[in-house]
Amino acid sequence: MKTLNLNLGERSYPIYIGAGTLDRRELVAPLIAGARVVIVTNDTVAPLYLERVRTCVAQFQPLSVVLPDGERFKTLEVLNRIFDALLEARCGRNTTLIALGGGVVGDMTGFAAACYQRGVPFIQMPTTLLAQVDSSVGGKTGVNHPLGKNMIGAFYQPRGVIIDTDTLNSLPDRELSAGLAEVIKYGLIQDREFFAWLEANMDNLHKRDPETLSHAIERSCRNKAEVVEADEKESGVRATLNLGHTFGHAIETGLGYGEWLHGEAIAAGMVMAADLSRRLGWITEADVVRIETLIKRAGLPARPPASLDASRILELMSVDKKVQNGRTRLVLLRSIGKAVVTDDFSPSLLRETLNLGRKTG
Amino acid sequence: MKTLNLNLGERSYPIYIGAGTLDRRELVAPLIAGARVVIVTNDTVAPLYLERVRTCVAQFQPLSVVLPDGERFKTLEVLNRIFDALLEARCGRNTTLIALGGGVVGDMTGFAAACYQRGVPFIQMPTTLLAQVDSSVGGKTGVNHPLGKNMIGAFYQPRGVIIDTDTLNSLPDRELSAGLAEVIKYGLIQDREFFAWLEANMDNLHKRDPETLSHAIERSCRNKAEVVEADEKESGVRATLNLGHTFGHAIETGLGYGEWLHGEAIAAGMVMAADLSRRLGWITEADVVRIETLIKRAGLPARPPASLDASRILELMSVDKKVQNGRTRLVLLRSIGKAVVTDDFSPSLLRETLNLGRKTG
Repeated sequence: MKTLNLNLGERSYPIYIGAGTLDRRELVAPLIAGARVVIVTNDTVAPLYLERVRTCVAQFQPLSVVLPDGERFKTLEVLNRIFDALLEARCGRNTTLIALGGGVVGDMTGFAAACYQRGVPFIQMPTTLLAQVDSSVGGKTGVNHPLGKNMIGAFYQPRGVIIDTDTLNSLPDRELSAGLAEVIKYGLIQDREFFAWLEANMDNLHKRDPETLSHAIERSCRNKAEVVEADEKESGVRATLNLGHTFGHAIETGLGYGEWLHGEAIAAGMVMAADLSRRLGWITEADVVRIETLIKRAGLPARPPASLDASRILELMSVDKKVQNGRTRLVLLRSIGKAVVTDDFSPSLLRETLNLGRKTG
Repeated sequence: MKTLNLNLGERSYPIYIGAGTLDRRELVAPLIAGARVVIVTNDTVAPLYLERVRTCVAQFQPLSVVLPDGERFKTLEVLNRIFDALLEARCGRNTTLIALGGGVVGDMTGFAAACYQRGVPFIQMPTTLLAQVDSSVGGKTGVNHPLGKNMIGAFYQPRGVIIDTDTLNSLPDRELSAGLAEVIKYGLIQDREFFAWLEANMDNLHKRDPETLSHAIERSCRNKAEVVEADEKESGVRATLNLGHTFGHAIETGLGYGEWLHGEAIAAGMVMAADLSRRLGWITEADVVRIETLIKRAGLPARPPASLDASRILELMSVDKKVQNGRTRLVLLRSIGKAVVTDDFSPSLLRETLNLGRKTG
């Protein structure tokens, strides 16, 4: 097992990565504050892992809340079911929440923990690759709104992240690929060497070789931790983690949440960001080909869905959190391994990029 | 005009107290971050003050959100209307919210600001005495849940508080009295001298003498600021600000939100806290009489409503945020001017206090 630390002063916490960590009491128990535990999960993950976690925390009178699975349930209404359960069980501030599941469960549980009685502790137990390499680390929590993704939320750090790499054995192929999108992202934004390693190891990742996956998770978490430590509240460098996300969120919102997986939308978005970067003369055509090739090898779409035209995507992009004073800001690439946040591009170049899918897709 | 400062490091902010401060541009403008302002108010306050505030911030493309007035609308559903309005207007992170109204508007606007795009700035412009002396200062924000008051929320500080004492001229008598409950509270928990001043000046307060009111507001805000500076997240002394609140919240939840005003419920709750303190031998019968007398002179109820019996109040108290490991903790009085948080009382004494209203009410 590997242990990383995310250093944020008094809000620092450990990230444990290993096989079979899910119910190792000596890892979980020290992260629990108080006498009570509530495990929040979804109806896909519950039959697989809930009992093991319940048994592990049996001494803390565990209560379970099972949410419906899927991005379209990441809403204020479904969030309220967590509050209902906590209040019906008369849970006080001495309650610790455990998020057992993918990114949706993690984001919602974290936000519920941030808001319940103005804040109770929580633990991330991510069971999808995407959650393990990205969403469970760094304290971004929240829910979607019909008009925009992750528009309602909080920065709220967990007390710890327990990544059980064995849970990936039960992950559908499509979800594995979705997670690889965020893995590739770290290579693109700040870790050129890791990008090359991914090119060399994509087949093994796809075959779920445990050691290769474990290395990819650890390196991703290291990258994520480094960025969050430098800029917890996203006033600067953390925004580069959103490479492909402004495009991707527009795709997710435009199609309806859950139609494409988050990682799939982000994959197409990263290719769009690469395309715009090339049009600005920042990266080469050869770079774009490398990026597209790796994304396709990961089993991910390299083009936006045909059903969304450029105007619609543009409209959806205008509510993005990175819009400042009416100008859309995007994360673009200076090179493979170096991302910048910029509004320094012409609307016409952006429109050419948005039409990309239409001409060649 | 008086200026107080609430000192919380980088989250410090000014509290302006004076007549006609509501639309003084030189006070408001420096508190606005970014290009956009959204004013949140309710349908009682809007006809009185909204246009003045809109004119004052005209340069920031002001948008208004008018909520229905009343504690029963302090819900997640109504909160979502603020998010709807912000997203429909494509408001980005460079938006500042202004809470123009009483405690409900302030709590909801602050919580909306805490959650919108994971946090945007906000300004408090309290227009009721209760909001001016208590809820607008200190960063407690949130909404109610059918099973408990203020159960969903955040600690989130405003960028500034602008108290226009002229707004009290339009306040109904019942609301003025409700505000006086929180004013009396400061005397009880930590400011014995202020309590004596209130005994001497209650008639002038009731007559809305501007100078007397202004002094009471300033002294209350000073007391509040001092407590919040010492313990922002309520891990210690801040809990004493909840004198009467565990009883009071039970009354509010039990009757249905809005039946009694918050200040009315707290007034009855403070008498109950005083009664229990006397039963413990901490304060004298004469102290209890002084407290009851002042509360009645303020136009406030000194007994819980007859429709709630002791068992029901006890049940409702058990979901309070101060419950720890199953034991109810209460703010009680060591003397007039000295409150403590304690679970060191027998259930039978508490029950005698809860039966108080039934025997003499």
